Amino acid sequence: MTLTNTIRKFGRGVAVVGAGMSKFGAFPGKNSRDLFVEAYQEMLASVDKGFDPRDIEALFIGNYSSDLFENQGHTAPIMADWVGLAPRPAVRIEDACASGGAALRQGLMAVASGLYDIVLVGGIEKMTDLPTERVTDTLATAADMVYEIPAGFTFPGFYAAMATAYMAQYGAPTDVFLQVGYKNHESGALNDKAQFGQRIADIMEARKKSAAKKGQPIPTWANEMEFLHDNRANPMIAWPMRLYDCSPISDGAAAVLLVSEEIANRFTDASLHVIGAGQASDGALHDRATLTAIPSAKKAAQDAYAMAGVKPADIGVVEVHDCFTIAEIVASEDLGFFAPGEGWKAAEDGVTARGGARPINTSGGLKSKGHPVGASGVGQVIEIWKQLRGQAGARQLDGNPSLGLTHNVGGTGQTCVVHIFERR
Amino acid sequence: MTLTNTIRKFGRGVAVVGAGMSKFGAFPGKNSRDLFVEAYQEMLASVDKGFDPRDIEALFIGNYSSDLFENQGHTAPIMADWVGLAPRPAVRIEDACASGGAALRQGLMAVASGLYDIVLVGGIEKMTDLPTERVTDTLATAADMVYEIPAGFTFPGFYAAMATAYMAQYGAPTDVFLQVGYKNHESGALNDKAQFGQRIADIMEARKKSAAKKGQPIPTWANEMEFLHDNRANPMIAWPMRLYDCSPISDGAAAVLLVSEEIANRFTDASLHVIGAGQASDGALHDRATLTAIPSAKKAAQDAYAMAGVKPADIGVVEVHDCFTIAEIVASEDLGFFAPGEGWKAAEDGVTARGGARPINTSGGLKSKGHPVGASGVGQVIEIWKQLRGQAGARQLDGNPSLGLTHNVGGTGQTCVVHIFERR
Repeated sequence: MTLTNTIRKFGRGVAVVGAGMSKFGAFPGKNSRDLFVEAYQEMLASVDKGFDPRDIEALFIGNYSSDLFENQGHTAPIMADWVGLAPRPAVRIEDACASGGAALRQGLMAVASGLYDIVLVGGIEKMTDLPTERVTDTLATAADMVYEIPAGFTFPGFYAAMATAYMAQYGAPTDVFLQVGYKNHESGALNDKAQFGQRIADIMEARKKSAAKKGQPIPTWANEMEFLHDNRANPMIAWPMRLYDCSPISDGAAAVLLVSEEIANRFTDASLHVIGAGQASDGALHDRATLTAIPSAKKAAQDAYAMAGVKPADIGVVEVHDCFTIAEIVASEDLGFFAPGEGWKAAEDGVTARGGARPINTSGGLKSKGHPVGASGVGQVIEIWKQLRGQAGARQLDGNPSLGLTHNVGGTGQTCVVHIFERR
Repeated sequence: MTLTNTIRKFGRGVAVVGAGMSKFGAFPGKNSRDLFVEAYQEMLASVDKGFDPRDIEALFIGNYSSDLFENQGHTAPIMADWVGLAPRPAVRIEDACASGGAALRQGLMAVASGLYDIVLVGGIEKMTDLPTERVTDTLATAADMVYEIPAGFTFPGFYAAMATAYMAQYGAPTDVFLQVGYKNHESGALNDKAQFGQRIADIMEARKKSAAKKGQPIPTWANEMEFLHDNRANPMIAWPMRLYDCSPISDGAAAVLLVSEEIANRFTDASLHVIGAGQASDGALHDRATLTAIPSAKKAAQDAYAMAGVKPADIGVVEVHDCFTIAEIVASEDLGFFAPGEGWKAAEDGVTARGGARPINTSGGLKSKGHPVGASGVGQVIEIWKQLRGQAGARQLDGNPSLGLTHNVGGTGQTCVVHIFERR
């Protein structure tokens, strides 16, 4: 009765018919509940044909650690209450930075199970109330506190280790990481929800102006790569990862409305059908055979492609989990877009830029859009929703893509969740 | 398209075919992962016809706050890894003290969705590493940290407020609470997994012996009620809740194996089919119209009874969430076993005792068995498993019951999850 390699399907289809998010950023006066209300309201407004919100039957809330970030547990029913949906069941789903993707997966299963026709999936995180060092410590609890953290690692260190392994194995230069960050800022500048809605060139010019205003020596960066190589402008965090290689500390929320496929057209004539879903787990980083790939991502992607019956080449728009720039390159290989060791070349050649043959992270990615960890996996779906429906504005991809993919990682890949969406 | 009052069903049936738990108690040398391995191994041994554990396809782990209790987030994949089930997807489910029940519900939906045939549902909590006052603070985060906790409440206070409201409204005496605690210790003494496996009489005699040994004056309690009324033996925590009205701080884990109904007989000829499932949420306590009932429990029970097509009177064995003794009395009314205001009389008359007409908490309940919060909702299923299969030993109920019910509350009822099981 071994079930390995069996392609599994949901008992019935599920579609996304609404999607919204708060702005991502640092909002000192707002709790996660306030941000969730903002995301919920935008989600409501996004439903083309409208609907009665009281028809929502259950809530699935992705959240990493309201416990440690806000000193608030049991956060799911608070979210239900604040959008007026109590007494509907509300549950929090946690898989570290993959909590949002995992919540989406629970919502899918809930509808596919026949129990519900209409459910809300949310993602929330409020990180900026803590001082930075405590945020780093809190994020570190997503690694193994018995075996990994006592060895002196925190997440920049983990991903730096992956980056150095990748460089050693494939000959990638450090510059390619900076290029990924540069690229994601180029797209994030076109996203009004992004935490850092500025191109690197804009940031550089703003720094020069600020120096002039203060009567300080004006920096002489000739171009963006000079800026990104400047240890004062872009300090080293954990070699080779610099500040602009790391996603920020963020507050934010996102929400999507899932319904059973057969009623999707009551809500919209342009729904996103979830045709592929995969999730996988893994042990601690030191137990892995490789540091240059994330096995759970490969497995989750395989399962999602198999369920969807599509190949990597069929995917038109992709949001990957670029918590660090190295993670985007590794993801581009784990997802099968490039062969192992080829991802960095594609990044260097502009293939993954918005105008390239394989655009990745048109939203700006976690790097520029922001990374409120429990919200990120749901936030990725917002970009797929916009791109597949032709609503992405200045960052809209050409060619009317009909298939999108999200890739959401927890820890260093102790969890990975992949979903594939088709516009119908 | 309003769906209110629609009876919802799962697309396919789901059965429990294995169940196990660690001992509940205080285990200084063990993490939650160690306790989960113990529960998992007992679950494996409980599967009558055996099976290959590699056939387990996914894990759903109920846990309140490994974040705050163990400084460990992202706990689900660690559990998968420690029982050798990585790379299978593993997700943590959180609804405060109802996390275990909520995890069971996610597991049910996962199987009913058609995605999986065989899944593992676990519940874990490791609470005793923190000093008691920090445990109280950590549990308090299950209430609203913006509106409730700043008012000076912690959980003993919340339930004490419910108890005083109940006494004022229905004329219940404080003695009835002590009787509930007494009753649950009577059953817990017959449960080798219970944290407090002692009858109140045993505890009383042990205290007398200890005093004699130390040359201290020997207490003169004539019977258990005198012991329970003694402010030194049973100190007041929050009037009228005394120490023996409160469930303890506990470590523990529990695990159940769920499979699709059609393959249940490959595992056992005596499976438990989950025929009813309900969950509901609510806002903060001060927003409620009443303190003498838990609205989410009534709603969850209604939904579970409707799905199952059974009445309260049909249920043979019941595990309710007696985090405090008042909670058991209120639960016995919310679940429809007694009319509002009648539950305390039933408790006083021994109706809810093991030998009574409506036995409640034959396991010893949270009071005596222990309350490792994320594990409790799954731990309840272990008792139903044993009672419905005639394996409860000295505490086995007469009459060969075929229907069982679990009632698992988060916070003061911001979440309640109810499940109904039928032995087939």
